[in-house]
Order: sequence, then structure tokens, then C-alpha cells
Amino acid sequence: MRKTTLLLLILCLFGFSANAQEALFRAQQIVSPEIHSDNSVTFRLFAPNATAVQITGDFLPTEKIETPMGQMDGPGKTNLKKVENGVWEFKTNPLGPELYNYSFIVDGMPSTDPSNPFLIRDVASVTNIFIIGGGHADLFKTNDIPHGTVARRWYDSPGLGMDRRITIYTPPGYESSNQKYPVLYLLHGAGGDEEAWIALGRTAQILDNLIHQGKAKPMIVVMPNGNVIQDAAPGEGSMGFYKPQFMVPKTMDGTYESTFMDIVKFVESNYRVHADKSNRAIAGLSMGGYHTMHISRFYPNTFDYIGLYSAAIMPREDATGKVYNDIEGTLKTQMKNGYKLYWIAIGKTDFLYKANVEYRDMLDKMGMKYEYVESEGGHTWRNWRVYLTQFAPRLFQ
Amino acid sequence: MRKTTLLLLILCLFGFSANAQEALFRAQQIVSPEIHSDNSVTFRLFAPNATAVQITGDFLPTEKIETPMGQMDGPGKTNLKKVENGVWEFKTNPLGPELYNYSFIVDGMPSTDPSNPFLIRDVASVTNIFIIGGGHADLFKTNDIPHGTVARRWYDSPGLGMDRRITIYTPPGYESSNQKYPVLYLLHGAGGDEEAWIALGRTAQILDNLIHQGKAKPMIVVMPNGNVIQDAAPGEGSMGFYKPQFMVPKTMDGTYESTFMDIVKFVESNYRVHADKSNRAIAGLSMGGYHTMHISRFYPNTFDYIGLYSAAIMPREDATGKVYNDIEGTLKTQMKNGYKLYWIAIGKTDFLYKANVEYRDMLDKMGMKYEYVESEGGHTWRNWRVYLTQFAPRLFQ
Repeated sequence: MRKTTLLLLILCLFGFSANAQEALFRAQQIVSPEIHSDNSVTFRLFAPNATAVQITGDFLPTEKIETPMGQMDGPGKTNLKKVENGVWEFKTNPLGPELYNYSFIVDGMPSTDPSNPFLIRDVASVTNIFIIGGGHADLFKTNDIPHGTVARRWYDSPGLGMDRRITIYTPPGYESSNQKYPVLYLLHGAGGDEEAWIALGRTAQILDNLIHQGKAKPMIVVMPNGNVIQDAAPGEGSMGFYKPQFMVPKTMDGTYESTFMDIVKFVESNYRVHADKSNRAIAGLSMGGYHTMHISRFYPNTFDYIGLYSAAIMPREDATGKVYNDIEGTLKTQMKNGYKLYWIAIGKTDFLYKANVEYRDMLDKMGMKYEYVESEGGHTWRNWRVYLTQFAPRLFQ
Repeated sequence: MRKTTLLLLILCLFGFSANAQEALFRAQQIVSPEIHSDNSVTFRLFAPNATAVQITGDFLPTEKIETPMGQMDGPGKTNLKKVENGVWEFKTNPLGPELYNYSFIVDGMPSTDPSNPFLIRDVASVTNIFIIGGGHADLFKTNDIPHGTVARRWYDSPGLGMDRRITIYTPPGYESSNQKYPVLYLLHGAGGDEEAWIALGRTAQILDNLIHQGKAKPMIVVMPNGNVIQDAAPGEGSMGFYKPQFMVPKTMDGTYESTFMDIVKFVESNYRVHADKSNRAIAGLSMGGYHTMHISRFYPNTFDYIGLYSAAIMPREDATGKVYNDIEGTLKTQMKNGYKLYWIAIGKTDFLYKANVEYRDMLDKMGMKYEYVESEGGHTWRNWRVYLTQFAPRLFQ
């Protein structure tokens, strides 16, 4: 090998694809978001020819937005100011501990922040994220503590006639012990999939932290895909890349509930678990809360811990009607068989609040015991992450 | 539970976070990219007030771009046309089979495509992707065949004094058999991490497909993080969210090579593997090719299969000099110990082409055997994916 030049050395150290390079040079000059020592945050965007740049994010006061379903709370918006060299800026007040999301609107066009490569997909929308630490938000961080393993596997579902992708968290020490573990089945909402809880829900970080702090028992967390027509999340399955939708057919017609034991059987024959009721928990958000309610009563002697997070309690008279067949009878059986925790949580401004009041009324009339947590806020991942931090410590104690 | 309204039903079915919702309503009207039956592709962007929208992507002819390191090939650009209702469009000619990437430039501002939620991060840049099927590109798809498992785990590196994240692919059937498997260690380039090969490289899809077609032996693929100062990819480790960089300290000073056996020991004590030379392969791209070259000669009786993809063969006289200590002596030992395949691949326009010619000259003079593959194109993931499809079938035969 002959002498080579310094240029080559530099090029080698910059040995990355040319595509990445040019965008890098543009973006490199900008830091966004910049989190200051007082937890205020400055956002910056290079948009030299824009006439108006806004930011929308869940740290801004909510605004009423018009939707085809009527007026709802939406994320707030505010303007960035053009400062210099084509850069626009907005600085927040100091923010409290939280995992926040945001995106920009540039002359009416939605855009993520090209300076921030940390993005989360929520159904078909991609937004940037950042964390202000402290308090409960430290549970969302990857800290320097023992970590569990997160596996994306495929299981055979005879009931649905396909191999399906599933996300499974095993706790720190699982691989190096012969111990058996309890299992939490954790279900996503409409438009979600087997990526939702692990990405938007920060499940691995929350469990790692709670287990390390001695606040939760080491447990396996199983995050299946509740859209029975999919083998996997959009982009991860045999349907290839396509725009994710909310209204996936057959998600609330009972098919998932009636085939759910395919998942339990897979887990219990492939992992070292305590395969009994006292070591099984099930919880879900929104549509996943609906699934949780029905699965736990369809198999009324299977789960000792049941968590309904902002549950989509659906009207019995509509398309989902047959799922509710004999609801009081099956709930009575579940009640008679016994369980250790039936946990219902919802935010005060959640559009499902009233449906949950009605469901609790029914449980009250039946004398069916539950615990109820009412939080601030609405139908948001911000609440669902917190519900997980509250629910997991209650399990398997 | 009392009667509820149809509105509630609709809201429940749309039971997703309000944040996602508004962006959805804007993006919902647009389909982009739209792949037509002749494999031409239409891109669309809603940018009602923009005065100029361009697309840049690796399906366009390359253009010379000016960089601080001199003139290099960059991705081409072309203009979108404003069609109606604030929507801009560009339609390609029919494209050949490939996994392509692209992004937009809106009035000078780089932007991803808000209608396409499929994104890949390459160092600090995020671009959209799509696949035109057929030929080798079918290997990049998730097909309806048995799938391996992809796990993100943490291993203890005594040499580096930390727990580190690692991505491991186990082939279909691994969990349901008692079989032992061979192992390919697959290393990323500068600015990459343990996410690079699995995301940009489509390793799981390529291996699933090659194994299913009988073209590759079932094998474990281990994708470690070669940046020894990191415990994990940016955003996945204890350093939290920060902008990924190319020039990570200590990546090419020999530290990784000298601690690499921590990874091999972890794999061989945690997986059912054939722990012998004939069942170990190592390959890497760019900086990972440099690591591969050095690791395989530092441990000259360890790997029977060695793959250098666009390897960053660095000058001996520079910062990396000591890594090259006794290179001819150690290569001679490696040669004497024997190996089954020493495979070197590079693109004709790669900026490392000359360095690889010089390295092959040295091997030629020493009489050290290797196979050489010269492809079109340059220093791109497009080449590295193809190299993996060519290299994997050669292993463990």
C-alpha cells in the first residue's frame, strides 16, 4: 500500500453515502431543539424563502380544531420569527418533565424538523420528539442501568391463518437465568400496531427503569398487532409500504378477541413464564382497552390484572354489537372467578370520558370491583405512558 | 351501559391522539409516492404557498456537488410542478428494481415527504424510502415466508467498561430447534451504529429471502455498534437524544478491534452457535471494512470468511497508523492459518477506489488470495445491500 493523502484520510472519516452528505451540510449549521438549562427550548428551522413558519406541539396550549367528527382539542400553534441567514426561531417558556412532540408548518405545509432525527410515527403522522427530564419523564429515558431485550418475532396464528409479527420485551436477566416470569399483554389503539407501545409508549425504557428501581416486578411484556387483517405493521409485513389507516377492517368485530389465545399459547410455549392466571396481566389503550375488556371476560379465568386505558367502550347497538353478547353474564362469571386488579384510567377531557362513566355505572350496579384513576388531559400518548408507569407497579405483587 | 351515539362510534373508531389527527387531515388527501403499473413514480407535495419545490433522490442522475472535501457525486435534483389546490407533482420515467430514497427541497428548505411515513435515518439525515420490486429488490421486501427474529439486546463489554446495545438476527426456526448455527458479524460505517445494517441494509429481509430460497445457509447475523465511546445508537443509549455525527472519536484507533472479542464471547455464550473458525464470518462497509480487515488479522485464526465492502483502507502514516503495526506480518499469519474467502467489493466511482487498488496490490505482492467484485456506482447503501446479497450465499458452504 503506497502513501495516500490527507484528503483521503478526511474522506474516509467522512465515509458516508453522498446522499446523506448534502442534506447534512445544510442541516449541520442548525441546532434544534436546543434545551436550555432552565428547560426552556429553542426550535430553529432553516427556511430562507418562507414567509410564515409555525410550530405545533403538545407543549403549547391546546386549540379547538374542526374535524369531520366535530370540534376537538388539537395541539396548539405558534409563530417562529425569522432571525438571520434564513433561520427561524421560537423559544418556549421553561417546560415541565415530559416526552414532547412537535412539527413545523411552513407556509401552510406540514414539515418535520430536519435538524432533529428523532421521530415517531403515530398512525400515518410522523412528528419529532424530545424529552425534558425530571420526575416521571426520567422513566422514559434510557438510563445507565440493566436493560431488557426487545425482540421482533413472528408467531403462527392458526385462528387467523397467518404468521404475524409481535414485539416482546424480556426483562434484564431473562437470558442469564432459569427463572420463570409473569407476562403483561399490552395492546395498542386504532391505527396502531406492534410498533406503537415500544416506540410511542417507551415500554422498554419504562420497564427497565421501574424494575431497576424495585417498583415493578421483572416481567415479560408482549405487544401484539391488534389489526387482524395485517400480518405486521405497515412497512413491516407482506403488504409492503402503504399509508397506515385508522379504520382497519375487522378490528372491533370480535375476531381479535376470539383468536387471542393463539398469542398466549405462543408466548407460553416459547418463553419461560409462569403460565397461570396470577401471572397474567392484560391492558390496552383506546381500542386496546376495548379489546382488553372483552378478552378478559371472554376468557374469564385467565387474567388476574386488567387495565383499561382510555378504553373505547363501544355502543352495543352498532357494528360491534355481537361482541357485547351476554356482557353482564360474562362479567359476572369473571367477577365470580375473581381477579386481583381491574384498573380503569381516563383523562378528564377524553372524548371517551362519558362512555367510561357509563361503563363504571354498569360495573357499580353489578357490584363488580375496580380501581379508577382520573387524570388531566385527553386521549393522548402522554397519558398512556403515565398509565403504564402507574399500572406496571401494581402487577404480580 | 346506556345507549351512546353514532358520533361516539365514529370517534371511537378514530380513537387516536388529537395531535396525529390534524396532520392526518392535511396529509390524507395526498398520495405520495404513487407507484404506477409501469414502475414510474409520481411524487406529490402539498405546499400551497411555495414558489419552488424540488425533489432529490438516488433515482435521479447524480450531480457534482461542492463539499468541504472537494467535488463529489451527489444525488440529482429536479423540479416539481404546481398542479392544483396547492399540490406539486413530479413523475419519473419507469424505474428499475431498487430500494430508493428521496426528499424534497421547498424554497430552499430540506423536507421529508409528509405523505410517506417510511423513513430511514442515515447518520443525521432522514429520508423517505420506497421499493420498486423485481430482481434483486425483491430481496429487500418482507415476503410471505418464514421470518427470523430481530432482537435489540445489551451485552457487557469488559474491554470498554460498559453495557452496550447490539442488534442480532436469528434465522427462522432458531427458537424451535436445538440446532447450532454459524455467525456473520456485520459492521457499519462511520456515522452508523447498531441500527444501520438492520434499517438501511435491510439485513433481516435479505437473510429471510436468501434462506427461504435456499441460497444462503441459516445463520445468525450480529450487528454491533463500532463507535466505542457510545453504549448505543444516538437516541437509544444513556447519552439521550443528540445529533449523530460522523467523526466519532476513537472509532479508527484500534480500540474496537482490540475489544471485539467481547462481542464474540457474548454471542458464543448466549446463542446456540458453532464456535469455530469455519462457522465465523465477518464483513463491514467503509469504516466497517477497515474494522473487518484489522479484526480478521488481529485474530488471524478466527474467521474463515472476510468481507470488505467499500473498505476505508486508511493511510498508515496518519492518526490510524498504529493500527497498521506489522500489517504484512499479521496478514502473512492470517494467510498461513488459512481462510475460505477473502472478499473485496467496491464501486467504480467510490472515492475509496484507489485505496482499495493499492490494498489489492499489496495482497497480490504477498500472494494473499482474495476475490474481487467491482460494481457500478459509489459509496452507497445501494451497493452495500447488494454486496450482502452476494456475500451471504458464499458463507458456510
